[in-house]
Amino acid sequence: MMNRYWRIDARPEGTNFAGALKLVEAPVAEPGDGQIAIRNAMLSMDAGTRMWLTDRTDGYQPPLEIGAPMTGLVLGEVAHSRHPDFAEGDLVRAFGVWGDLSVVDPVMSGAIKLDPTVEDRRAWFGPLGMNGWTALWGVEQTGAAKEGETVLVSAAAGATGILAVQIAKLLGCKSWGIAGGADKCRFLTEQIGIDGAVDYKAADVAAQLDRIGGVDVYFDNVGGRLLDAVLTRMNHYGRIAVCGLVSDYSSGSRTAPQEFDQVLMRRLRIEGFFSPDFMDQGERLTARLRQWVEAGALTMPYDVTRGLENTLDAYAKLFTGGNIGKVIVELEQ
Amino acid sequence: MMNRYWRIDARPEGTNFAGALKLVEAPVAEPGDGQIAIRNAMLSMDAGTRMWLTDRTDGYQPPLEIGAPMTGLVLGEVAHSRHPDFAEGDLVRAFGVWGDLSVVDPVMSGAIKLDPTVEDRRAWFGPLGMNGWTALWGVEQTGAAKEGETVLVSAAAGATGILAVQIAKLLGCKSWGIAGGADKCRFLTEQIGIDGAVDYKAADVAAQLDRIGGVDVYFDNVGGRLLDAVLTRMNHYGRIAVCGLVSDYSSGSRTAPQEFDQVLMRRLRIEGFFSPDFMDQGERLTARLRQWVEAGALTMPYDVTRGLENTLDAYAKLFTGGNIGKVIVELEQ
Repeated sequence: MMNRYWRIDARPEGTNFAGALKLVEAPVAEPGDGQIAIRNAMLSMDAGTRMWLTDRTDGYQPPLEIGAPMTGLVLGEVAHSRHPDFAEGDLVRAFGVWGDLSVVDPVMSGAIKLDPTVEDRRAWFGPLGMNGWTALWGVEQTGAAKEGETVLVSAAAGATGILAVQIAKLLGCKSWGIAGGADKCRFLTEQIGIDGAVDYKAADVAAQLDRIGGVDVYFDNVGGRLLDAVLTRMNHYGRIAVCGLVSDYSSGSRTAPQEFDQVLMRRLRIEGFFSPDFMDQGERLTARLRQWVEAGALTMPYDVTRGLENTLDAYAKLFTGGNIGKVIVELEQ
Repeated sequence: MMNRYWRIDARPEGTNFAGALKLVEAPVAEPGDGQIAIRNAMLSMDAGTRMWLTDRTDGYQPPLEIGAPMTGLVLGEVAHSRHPDFAEGDLVRAFGVWGDLSVVDPVMSGAIKLDPTVEDRRAWFGPLGMNGWTALWGVEQTGAAKEGETVLVSAAAGATGILAVQIAKLLGCKSWGIAGGADKCRFLTEQIGIDGAVDYKAADVAAQLDRIGGVDVYFDNVGGRLLDAVLTRMNHYGRIAVCGLVSDYSSGSRTAPQEFDQVLMRRLRIEGFFSPDFMDQGERLTARLRQWVEAGALTMPYDVTRGLENTLDAYAKLFTGGNIGKVIVELEQ
């Protein structure tokens, strides 16, 4: 079998992914005992994968090796199975290869069989996937948002953020988002229906943040300077759920909050979390999210790029603010 | 009535307290309706009061005003009472005046009647006071230390720290402390009996910290660069209980953790706490602490200065690392 896939040839600098990842075609081994081959129908673009491309060994995943295929979440049907729990034709989601095929150990790759009756299967990458789990966990568990409180979400037009702002509202909170540009902010308030949006690219960010009137839960995907601006606007005993530090991933600089002492002044709680920690809760979380999705209460805009060869354009959007909602690459099959 | 007391004439720079506080003698009004007059027998020296001397309005207490008497915890007998719950001769602890007399509203000043049968009444400023409450709360509640885990405490030879390391051991944890200088470290391991001590003034701090083998709970009184050094040595899902940022109080610089992203990498929880938040639990906390004290399991070295006129020398020790244990000023009566 031949496979086209994106190979890591170097550590990318900033968002110059074309200088580091190369689309190659090479033979792929047939699945060994206990493995499955997935014919990828879709690739999920996730900012967290940017870290695996660095050589940082203190991240939450070890770095991917130079020469290895790029790894990310994929969705597709099982083309060939040598694992008793998976049959040809099963729809699955797994950590696989940015390529036409993913040959994986289903346990190691966290492969999950998906209900094929869900109408829009892109939802498995959105509200019913890691982004949904992360949004629900971050707002409810890590953020411990209570009815009537004010929840603020950064990167609120991103895949996780746009779910987090909606879930905050569904849990009875006042819901605010931070996004880049008037268009995204308008989308959030008018289409998604949250209580207010802050345009971090505008000149008056401080005044906009002041208008929130105090934040109980900050669901942070970004870190950096915005975190400082929010720290001084947290209510006492507020919680900051650190989901991502996307401002760090490409900039080379690292978040070092100048307003850290607010942790003591306001008795804040800052806590990091990420989805592999609650994988075992996935079924329960999916069931709750699915109820909201089926009731039309939780929506996701999709930003779809077609063709494996265009993957890097899709990926770059995550770091340049070029998307609203979930970025997906659909492969021709 | 005349009263000698320390008046705030200016905001102190660094540890130049003599340039800011002046011992004056002035008439004091008799207690009004609902007030009491305390004849101060002891003053408690606490680093947290340093913040009230700045003009920062975003701290956890508003700044003390220029011209006002310096405020802190005092212990003494009620000399005159116009409050029904307090009688002449009652032993009390309250937020009062650094002076011979404190005329206060007992509710506003958090005045508490003390059991006069406790043999060493200095304990009301140590294990049975704010330091004890804070140590127990920080290790058990904020830090959520579990049996068998490793607890590390900064400023471990200070009044709160020396209780926190002992409480960690009493709760079944491995207990490590950070202190300045070989003498303090030896005191902690040999006299207090904790598992290990790190001398932050030594050249090999990093190697010493590595020897701990991973930290589950960091009880931080200091902030600053030490916090960064510990962040990279926290175990996954570790907790950092931020009790104080004493490195900030006098230096003028502010803690801005360069290793903040470890919050995400290791899924840490960082939480600020301070004693007024659990004042209402004081009786329960005191009862538990008193059992340990009476069993001889919780000890406190006292660093006692005699005479109101020497208060500033005692106070400065908190910021120059000049003390082991609780710094107290005893007044002549």
